[in-house]
Amino acid sequence: MANKSFSLKFKGDARNTGSMRNDIDVSFESMNENFKLATDEGAFHGGKGTAPPPLALFTASLCGCVMTQIKAFGKKLKIEVDEIKIDASMNWNGEITEEGPYIASCEGYNLDIDIISNEKIENKIKLLMAAIDGCFIEASLKPGIVKHRLKDNESWITI
Amino acid sequence: MANKSFSLKFKGDARNTGSMRNDIDVSFESMNENFKLATDEGAFHGGKGTAPPPLALFTASLCGCVMTQIKAFGKKLKIEVDEIKIDASMNWNGEITEEGPYIASCEGYNLDIDIISNEKIENKIKLLMAAIDGCFIEASLKPGIVKHRLKDNESWITI
Repeated sequence: MANKSFSLKFKGDARNTGSMRNDIDVSFESMNENFKLATDEGAFHGGKGTAPPPLALFTASLCGCVMTQIKAFGKKLKIEVDEIKIDASMNWNGEITEEGPYIASCEGYNLDIDIISNEKIENKIKLLMAAIDGCFIEASLKPGIVKHRLKDNESWITI
Repeated sequence: MANKSFSLKFKGDARNTGSMRNDIDVSFESMNENFKLATDEGAFHGGKGTAPPPLALFTASLCGCVMTQIKAFGKKLKIEVDEIKIDASMNWNGEITEEGPYIASCEGYNLDIDIISNEKIENKIKLLMAAIDGCFIEASLKPGIVKHRLKDNESWITI
């Protein structure tokens, strides 16, 4: 039996006019929603700090995507979710080349996740696994680069 | 001869307290910079639209990261950059399971990039390739999932 599927499209219209600031108009086409976003760098990197740097938006987007799916799928699976907390640690390296630019690499993203409710840990595990499988950002990341741990009382379970 | 390397760490402190809104405090530790970010969903997905959805932040972060590296590496490589434009198209699919949640997949991210300056196309190609190699977000994405095209007068070159 075929499952139902759907597609999701976002468009970005991004402009840089000379400084380190970038203005990005994002549209969620099927919903007719539009968002004006921006990035900038701090003074150390030649920017004016008028907006968060791209990696701050990225950190928020990954945490937000996983949390949103925990919340949304909790309803679908009838698994209670009172609150959610994520401690995220995002780790990258740069290797500076002779000519000046650097080569970026990613050491990994560690998400320590606390699903706060009276549910049994088995249900929390099931919900977190569904949320990871349903996260559109994670679907585009290298396999294994995100390490998830779920809080179980005072200890952590690797998912 | 060993090249110089550096590490980059961002932390996220993310909280959901019951609605579809997520609040994420992001810190860029070595720079002592802190950013208060948030995501929400529109009414269709049970949110109140108090902030952009996670995928809007993600779209902006990817465009912003590539543009920032074009700008930064243009200086290092002495390749002139007057303005930059990116048209981004971000494409995902969801496959709904019997139980309710869906499995996310990513069809790909298409970035059409215009580096506006009087530089020869060879220099623009060199700069864009350096920026892609220097993009921390792309370093964590599945190889080949981002498709880059560079504008050359009225045509497009696949990079």
